[in-house]
Amino acid sequence: MATSSVPHFQEELEQLKARLLEMGGLAEDRVRSAVKALVDRDASLVDAVLAGDQPINQLHIEIDGRCFRMLALHQPMAVDLRAIMSAVKINTDLERVGDLAINIAEAVLRYLGHALVKELIDIPRMSDIAQAMLRDALDAYVRRDMMLAQAVLDQDDTLDALKTEVFRELLTYMLRDAQTIEPALDLILISRHLERIGDHATNIAEDVIFMVSARDVRHHASDLK
Amino acid sequence: MATSSVPHFQEELEQLKARLLEMGGLAEDRVRSAVKALVDRDASLVDAVLAGDQPINQLHIEIDGRCFRMLALHQPMAVDLRAIMSAVKINTDLERVGDLAINIAEAVLRYLGHALVKELIDIPRMSDIAQAMLRDALDAYVRRDMMLAQAVLDQDDTLDALKTEVFRELLTYMLRDAQTIEPALDLILISRHLERIGDHATNIAEDVIFMVSARDVRHHASDLK
Repeated sequence: MATSSVPHFQEELEQLKARLLEMGGLAEDRVRSAVKALVDRDASLVDAVLAGDQPINQLHIEIDGRCFRMLALHQPMAVDLRAIMSAVKINTDLERVGDLAINIAEAVLRYLGHALVKELIDIPRMSDIAQAMLRDALDAYVRRDMMLAQAVLDQDDTLDALKTEVFRELLTYMLRDAQTIEPALDLILISRHLERIGDHATNIAEDVIFMVSARDVRHHASDLK
Repeated sequence: MATSSVPHFQEELEQLKARLLEMGGLAEDRVRSAVKALVDRDASLVDAVLAGDQPINQLHIEIDGRCFRMLALHQPMAVDLRAIMSAVKINTDLERVGDLAINIAEAVLRYLGHALVKELIDIPRMSDIAQAMLRDALDAYVRRDMMLAQAVLDQDDTLDALKTEVFRELLTYMLRDAQTIEPALDLILISRHLERIGDHATNIAEDVIFMVSARDVRHHASDLK
């Protein structure tokens, strides 16, 4: 096949995976720092998150370029082609997670300027779940582990339920005491950003299942066939 | 090259473009209906949006499959390869726009259950801009029109500014009158969903510029080189 003239596809694929893991680690770090800034009321951590998106953006461009070159040079087939297509999508998801960390950091900065809402409710827990989903989704990609990918999908409902619960509790505060309106709004936005990070982890897990099985689990695709 | 045994790549590309336009039209329709439901206070329109995401989801899977087959069969190079890579990404963006239309419809449904906030401020205008950006971005893809893609990028700041303005005005209402807290929250969420639709149009425009010029304008990439 065309690949015989250009060897080392598997080697390049390993490098690609390593890059995606690196980018995932950076994205996760940023989410963790942004939420730690909220919990510790530490504005310097916010600044670090806001200032530090260059490495993720650079990796985003580099990984896209790698995928493009691997498609052009190796013309991969079947699972190898799906692995590259998935990498392109995962790369996009991870870049968005980096952006969401910035959105969280911006909301934290506003929040720190206000009187305290008594408690952060389930926001730290939402953050832990979102980070774990992201980590597991990337591990599932690297190891081609369908079970782990499925476990990520199952976690998404937990995160959605927590978001709804957080919204309900904060709304109660807002209705009771107008002083809490502005900080509660920021917490609502933060919980929504965290839920979206979970959505990106879900996207990645769905890509993993497609890559491994060639089965499209988005939109319960099996029902459509 | 490998393509000689499988002709018709350009023909398939035209079909792919037609499918993306069809999907974009559906996504735009749904956004328009969701915001019309808000303006006209028409819950039946909301139901139509909530019930009708099957066609978009089906196109999403079909387009992904088309891209995959075109890569596997034709092993395209250069601008043709970039056109397929872009289509994969645009497909993801359009599917998310469909999801955002649902998010808007859900918020409209809650909103209609509450006392009126006096006015919808700039939300209908935000919707018009977001829809126009989406349409222009897809036209730019189909026509490989860099100028039009650039015009979409320029519009994004307008949308961001309107979102900030809408937030500020609604916050004033909320602080003044606790009765407006719940409906204003829904309007804030709707304005954020519209802004994200603009972000997806921006992603598409950036993909168009990459496809045509092989130049990556994301993250001001030219500064990195």
